[in-house]
Amino acid sequence: MNVIEAVRWSDDGAGVRILDQRELPSREVYRDLRTVDEVYEAILTLAVRGAPAIGIAGAMGISLGLDKIDGDRDAALRCVMAAHARLKSARPTAVNLAWATDRVRAAALRGDDVRSNVVAEATRILEEDRAMCRAIGENAATLIPDGARVLTHCNTGALATGGIGTALAGVYVAAEKGRRVHVFADETRPLLQGSRLTAWELERSGIPATVLVDGAAASLMAQGEVDLCIVGADRIAVNGDVANKIGTYHLAIAAKHHGIPFYVAAPASTFDPETLNGTKILIEQRSADEVRSSTGMLTAPAGVAVYNPAFDVTPASLITAIVSDRGVHRPPYHFALGAR
Amino acid sequence: MNVIEAVRWSDDGAGVRILDQRELPSREVYRDLRTVDEVYEAILTLAVRGAPAIGIAGAMGISLGLDKIDGDRDAALRCVMAAHARLKSARPTAVNLAWATDRVRAAALRGDDVRSNVVAEATRILEEDRAMCRAIGENAATLIPDGARVLTHCNTGALATGGIGTALAGVYVAAEKGRRVHVFADETRPLLQGSRLTAWELERSGIPATVLVDGAAASLMAQGEVDLCIVGADRIAVNGDVANKIGTYHLAIAAKHHGIPFYVAAPASTFDPETLNGTKILIEQRSADEVRSSTGMLTAPAGVAVYNPAFDVTPASLITAIVSDRGVHRPPYHFALGAR
Repeated sequence: MNVIEAVRWSDDGAGVRILDQRELPSREVYRDLRTVDEVYEAILTLAVRGAPAIGIAGAMGISLGLDKIDGDRDAALRCVMAAHARLKSARPTAVNLAWATDRVRAAALRGDDVRSNVVAEATRILEEDRAMCRAIGENAATLIPDGARVLTHCNTGALATGGIGTALAGVYVAAEKGRRVHVFADETRPLLQGSRLTAWELERSGIPATVLVDGAAASLMAQGEVDLCIVGADRIAVNGDVANKIGTYHLAIAAKHHGIPFYVAAPASTFDPETLNGTKILIEQRSADEVRSSTGMLTAPAGVAVYNPAFDVTPASLITAIVSDRGVHRPPYHFALGAR
Repeated sequence: MNVIEAVRWSDDGAGVRILDQRELPSREVYRDLRTVDEVYEAILTLAVRGAPAIGIAGAMGISLGLDKIDGDRDAALRCVMAAHARLKSARPTAVNLAWATDRVRAAALRGDDVRSNVVAEATRILEEDRAMCRAIGENAATLIPDGARVLTHCNTGALATGGIGTALAGVYVAAEKGRRVHVFADETRPLLQGSRLTAWELERSGIPATVLVDGAAASLMAQGEVDLCIVGADRIAVNGDVANKIGTYHLAIAAKHHGIPFYVAAPASTFDPETLNGTKILIEQRSADEVRSSTGMLTAPAGVAVYNPAFDVTPASLITAIVSDRGVHRPPYHFALGAR
């Protein structure tokens, strides 16, 4: 199993190597980012994307330039503070980026060797993420038998993390164990993460994949071509209601209608003990132009109104099981304790 | 109510005037087609599209050039035969185009004044289509109360016909009667007829419209924003199962899940007495490139497999009522007699 790495240290240890996702699916281009500014730019322009991956890139990015400061702790800490502020600001609403960069800043303050502490903490964040992906994958793989035809939505794979992904990790682990798996990837309008990213990384890893428009999923199910669905989550309420990419709820209804298992797989850090149920989740509206012209041409009247929610809420009643790095959770759900 | 006309005679009667749909939604361009070749090209390149509209354009096109032939019946008939063969071949699988052009050819043979007969028959086809649209609209409007928020899929409006459309005709008639109607238009991947065409013609007619990605429809329903769904049909089986644009079935499942009425509206000519139920309908697969790169950029790996059915089948059990130019049909459905 040759799963791609979206973000890691450069081979010489002095940079952050990313797979430039702006070039996908046309070209596979890796870039060694050598300065804080380059990492900032990469996060800002979505060259690196996916909550865990941008957290890791931001954390690693704080280390860049510190090797040029010889033994001056105060100068090194000033560098860390400046890099932290800049990188954290690249995606102000990305909780994971704030969390990871804050963690590295705190580590920098803990001892004399600022650079070593920063590098060690960023490396720990990467390794924890890889371990989290692996654990989700091992747990999710218990639900994916040999020969399974798996329908997924959006991108929850290696491209979004430092490891083998979240919801898609189960597919990678099942394939590693020698099981034959075929993935159907919803293209996932409006931003097409399924066709651009999920299909690409699966093909790159040698796992057979078929792309379909989001509206075709029910038709595929009706023909008996889907054995199970597995999707990710942006937030999971205490009662098991799940906020995830727009289209997830529609898919869950279709799965229920056809009696097909519908699984959600995500890090335990996604459990939100302060959200009792899905009705408490505010649905963010995104730019109308994502729908009207996201692929470079005008596909709707320029001024027409657009309903473009970032995500929808799937009630727990439609979810067969929720998988995390801690295990496979079955209803009734009660996620009282969040975790990071 | 100022509904656009997709196809009609030119103002001077010597050409076929079409709204060039290749320019939508960016520009509203009308073209007067003056030769058989120009009509052929317009049908071939989808400048005119929608089964009824291309039938009408083909029928009218047969008349072009006949005004230059003075009284020579044999020469005129040779012209008709050549035009018939050429126009019919522009979209070989379009049943309506074959039916309409055959009808005009038969009319040409019936009397001495070939051109008059051709023009009269093509005009009859246009007028019958307008009357059919009007009848569907009047029947469908009985289901659309004041203040209704109507969700639709694909384009079933004036752009597809010589009149005010099929499924969308009910919206136009309801608006004519002074009812306030708001239409939510699924963008309808892969070819985006909903966002490109339906949203455009509604806006052009002053009816408020909101575009959404297909996967967002269920989320909209969950928020109580949809009062009813109305869609068209490519074919209706004897038992009421309906073949229509891919995504229709997915939408019908979501409507059922939320207890929202789901209506199909189409010409009685869509009833197929030779198809007992939906399982007998062969599902045509269309080009993978419609999904991978239809909007001009590569949105999936170039070689990835694609599931791209032209339509899906919605079982009668999910359909609240079927509307045709003959009336409003309620379950149990039994469409034993097709009609043209």
